Amino acid sequence: MKKEHKGKVRVIPLGGLEKIGMNITAFEYEDSIIVVDCGLAFPEDGMLGIDLVIPDVTYLKNNIDKVKGFVITHGHEDHIGALPYILRDVNIPIYATKLTMGIIEKKLQEHNLLRGTRRKVVRHGQSINLGQFRIEFIKTNHSIQDAAALAIYSPAGIIVHTGDFKVDYTPVFGDAIDLQRFAEIGKKGVLALMSDSTNAERPGFTQSEKTVGITFDHLFAEHKDSRIIVATFASNVDRVQQIINSAIKYERKVVVEGRSMVNIIDTAGELGYLDIPDKTLIGIDQLKNYPPEKTVLITTGSQGESMAALSRMAADMHKKVTIMPGDTVIFSSNPIPGNEKSVSKVINELYEKGANVIMQDAHVSGHACQEELKLIYSLVHPKYAIPVHGEYRHLVANSNVAKMLGIPNDNIFILQSGDVLELCDDSAVVVDHVPTGEILVDGLGVGDVGNIVLRDRQHLAEDGILIVVLTLEGKTNNLMAGPDIVSRGFVYVRESESLMEEARQLLSSTIEDCLKNQKNADWSKIKMVIRDTMNDFIWKRTKRRPMILPIIMDV
Amino acid sequence: MKKEHKGKVRVIPLGGLEKIGMNITAFEYEDSIIVVDCGLAFPEDGMLGIDLVIPDVTYLKNNIDKVKGFVITHGHEDHIGALPYILRDVNIPIYATKLTMGIIEKKLQEHNLLRGTRRKVVRHGQSINLGQFRIEFIKTNHSIQDAAALAIYSPAGIIVHTGDFKVDYTPVFGDAIDLQRFAEIGKKGVLALMSDSTNAERPGFTQSEKTVGITFDHLFAEHKDSRIIVATFASNVDRVQQIINSAIKYERKVVVEGRSMVNIIDTAGELGYLDIPDKTLIGIDQLKNYPPEKTVLITTGSQGESMAALSRMAADMHKKVTIMPGDTVIFSSNPIPGNEKSVSKVINELYEKGANVIMQDAHVSGHACQEELKLIYSLVHPKYAIPVHGEYRHLVANSNVAKMLGIPNDNIFILQSGDVLELCDDSAVVVDHVPTGEILVDGLGVGDVGNIVLRDRQHLAEDGILIVVLTLEGKTNNLMAGPDIVSRGFVYVRESESLMEEARQLLSSTIEDCLKNQKNADWSKIKMVIRDTMNDFIWKRTKRRPMILPIIMDV
Repeated sequence: MKKEHKGKVRVIPLGGLEKIGMNITAFEYEDSIIVVDCGLAFPEDGMLGIDLVIPDVTYLKNNIDKVKGFVITHGHEDHIGALPYILRDVNIPIYATKLTMGIIEKKLQEHNLLRGTRRKVVRHGQSINLGQFRIEFIKTNHSIQDAAALAIYSPAGIIVHTGDFKVDYTPVFGDAIDLQRFAEIGKKGVLALMSDSTNAERPGFTQSEKTVGITFDHLFAEHKDSRIIVATFASNVDRVQQIINSAIKYERKVVVEGRSMVNIIDTAGELGYLDIPDKTLIGIDQLKNYPPEKTVLITTGSQGESMAALSRMAADMHKKVTIMPGDTVIFSSNPIPGNEKSVSKVINELYEKGANVIMQDAHVSGHACQEELKLIYSLVHPKYAIPVHGEYRHLVANSNVAKMLGIPNDNIFILQSGDVLELCDDSAVVVDHVPTGEILVDGLGVGDVGNIVLRDRQHLAEDGILIVVLTLEGKTNNLMAGPDIVSRGFVYVRESESLMEEARQLLSSTIEDCLKNQKNADWSKIKMVIRDTMNDFIWKRTKRRPMILPIIMDV
Repeated sequence: MKKEHKGKVRVIPLGGLEKIGMNITAFEYEDSIIVVDCGLAFPEDGMLGIDLVIPDVTYLKNNIDKVKGFVITHGHEDHIGALPYILRDVNIPIYATKLTMGIIEKKLQEHNLLRGTRRKVVRHGQSINLGQFRIEFIKTNHSIQDAAALAIYSPAGIIVHTGDFKVDYTPVFGDAIDLQRFAEIGKKGVLALMSDSTNAERPGFTQSEKTVGITFDHLFAEHKDSRIIVATFASNVDRVQQIINSAIKYERKVVVEGRSMVNIIDTAGELGYLDIPDKTLIGIDQLKNYPPEKTVLITTGSQGESMAALSRMAADMHKKVTIMPGDTVIFSSNPIPGNEKSVSKVINELYEKGANVIMQDAHVSGHACQEELKLIYSLVHPKYAIPVHGEYRHLVANSNVAKMLGIPNDNIFILQSGDVLELCDDSAVVVDHVPTGEILVDGLGVGDVGNIVLRDRQHLAEDGILIVVLTLEGKTNNLMAGPDIVSRGFVYVRESESLMEEARQLLSSTIEDCLKNQKNADWSKIKMVIRDTMNDFIWKRTKRRPMILPIIMDV
């Protein structure tokens, strides 16, 4: 028997659509707002020099009195990474499962925010009340432990948010996804399902994490005469557990290398998510005390990140580990789109040093494929489908799955960040659009690098800069010094002396003309003439367009 | 019965190993040198602003009297693209098959080099004599027509070079690879086989180009109510032929769009490599005269290149074609490693405009997989194996295939560019190393951008530039003007006025101290102080390291 619902609930994604990363969604009912996740994105190709990208949360700031808390689905950067930045302006409590909270706390500690932030650990199956909302945490599986889906109860109805998930019937640690609970809630009647679109283009089922353990056993058996180095994602604790399991079985000592991996393993170990028997782990300095074939290194760098441990080993820049001929290096990962070339560079370097590189079968995804999506849609049986977590192509693929299961086209919503989707039993309509955006973090600067600075960086990167300096006598406008030309990133000046000399002479006569022809030379006009003259000359001679920067000094 | 060989032949790769691109190899016997291919490479990620990369051919210039000619295997950029640059210094004849030569001639024409270059078209099966070498062109299959393998006969023995190849028993145009000839030459006794490593990591066989034609037929049948747009590689004339075949079968008119594709289709059409019935092709302006479902566009942009036709259509920046809801866009290509993200961007934009995007099964590779390599090794039965055309990982994979077929480890050579491998019946030894390298082309500049300029561009790209200008009175060293600070690509100055003002004040006092403390202020010392002061201040305040450029003017 269906409950009677009242009012309307609003779903307002503030990021996480359009691309993978920066997941954050507000849910609003009357005077209550809750925020699911608060992630960062890694910079795109054109974002030169940018360290990371965080969401614009103006909407939350403007409604700060309503905002009750952050509800976090799991501990990956694209779901928690913006917290230390956003909490400064939006200081509300955080709700998360135990491991997720452990990872968040480590992060807040680094930013000196631990004390000032209220936090509550929630168990799977438990609910919290935030204003007009009740939020239930439901057990799921993912490539990090302790992931949760959320059932968000509002007076207007229930919204189920899967978080990032897969269906793993045989997880390495803890329970399988709580399919029964999804079914129970589905039976009550669910207004909308927001589900993970990452793998929605892929048919079939994602394999269980356990299958990777079997692969490790085979690989350890096959390569029992060589040292083994396994690169994987720092946060995949189950993966680390399975490597350790194989190491124990084949009587090898284990070294963990790479700062982010050591951090997460510490946290996971302290909280009881890892089971490492005594005397299994050794310090990296102890490696020399064991025969290579009795050791395993678990390391970061599976994405070819230039500063990660494996990349430094491959480039012979690691202080403590040198790749030796015969080493077996296993990539327990797939390259994330965009990282293919850096990964390939590391693989080439490893081969050059005589290592044997294995890339097949030592990884499974953490995201649901089409058959898993169908399962969740069927259990939850929502009225509306809102695909989330993906680029547009993935959202389309997810909505195609929804259509296939009979959800009418009009009830499927591919939203854009900022859309305000208002839902009730009878209707779902995008009623508004709130401001959203990407805020760039560069070093300590949050938001001080915008499009103008980025365009300048792109321009400088492409063709460098030519600076033209001259000194004018303030009253008379006599040319006191210059014009001098200084360039960076344009040509190797020592080999282009004649080009630069020609440019200087051309400028001299142009500027003199300019000064002669008017009593009070207008500086902005002089600058314009310098720019035009140089642009023309340089383009004709080189077919390049360096940035031309005139600087006039006044004596 | 084996012939008696005499002397030693030298194989000297001047590029093309280490990475895919820039293929060029010299073969030397006494006073004769021949050069196989002369390709360019596309810039790597760190090569900011660079258009293309060509090989350093100092070795050829130093031995110009010996160099008899360029022998070209096929018409792809990584095998012919450097010719217009290298011919300026190394003006020797070019030998190639008909279509290959047609493509080369178009290129030479653009560079005004056609007249000054001797050229000879060679048929498959034909041989040419160049000094002490005889070179036989052998028919192969590849993703461009008229590809050739080379049997290079020298007094020291035969070297077979596969060029880029696959084994296609059912090619779209012309004959299958001449396996019998490979066998015959193998029977005579082959010293060394140099074979294409691109797909050596892949098991099995590469599918026939014809299979793509079948896919097109299916796709055209399935999408008979919508306009079809197919993106593919400009130079794959057989692919274009098959799209046209399907278009004719399903009574559609064909538009070819994208400059490089129009060029190659012109050349291929003129030379008889394409069969297009009258009234099949229409101009892009005529599109409006036909119902969408009666048209096909064949276009460039399958790699997401930002200026290519499909990318411009997807971004709504194409002057003549607008993507319409319901359009079917087929990617008849795989993303080349490094292009995944740009391709994905285009796919997302197409979906956003309501197009249906198809990425599966509409492409086959042009390179041999492991079973094809085994076949060629078995037919040619060389004494030595020299894997070519690939990154190190691919060369290793190819040498693993050679090992599997019984070629001893000592007879397999993974060379580096510049290695001089000296071969005879009894031995093969790297005896020398000649200078090689990458020459960067940026606009009209060839080689004027080197590591220093690139490092500057990378620095500028990362954090921008801060220019500090001051004017000193020459004799007294009085500060006449400044210090002024101008920045580009660092921060948005209007929002960082206080930071810049603080920096200016700090600099002022630092420079005054500096000038006071010494009678004749040493400019290089003043500059150093400026750099250090600014680096410190900016790092502390922003954790960024813009380039600091002090400029002192002298009045």
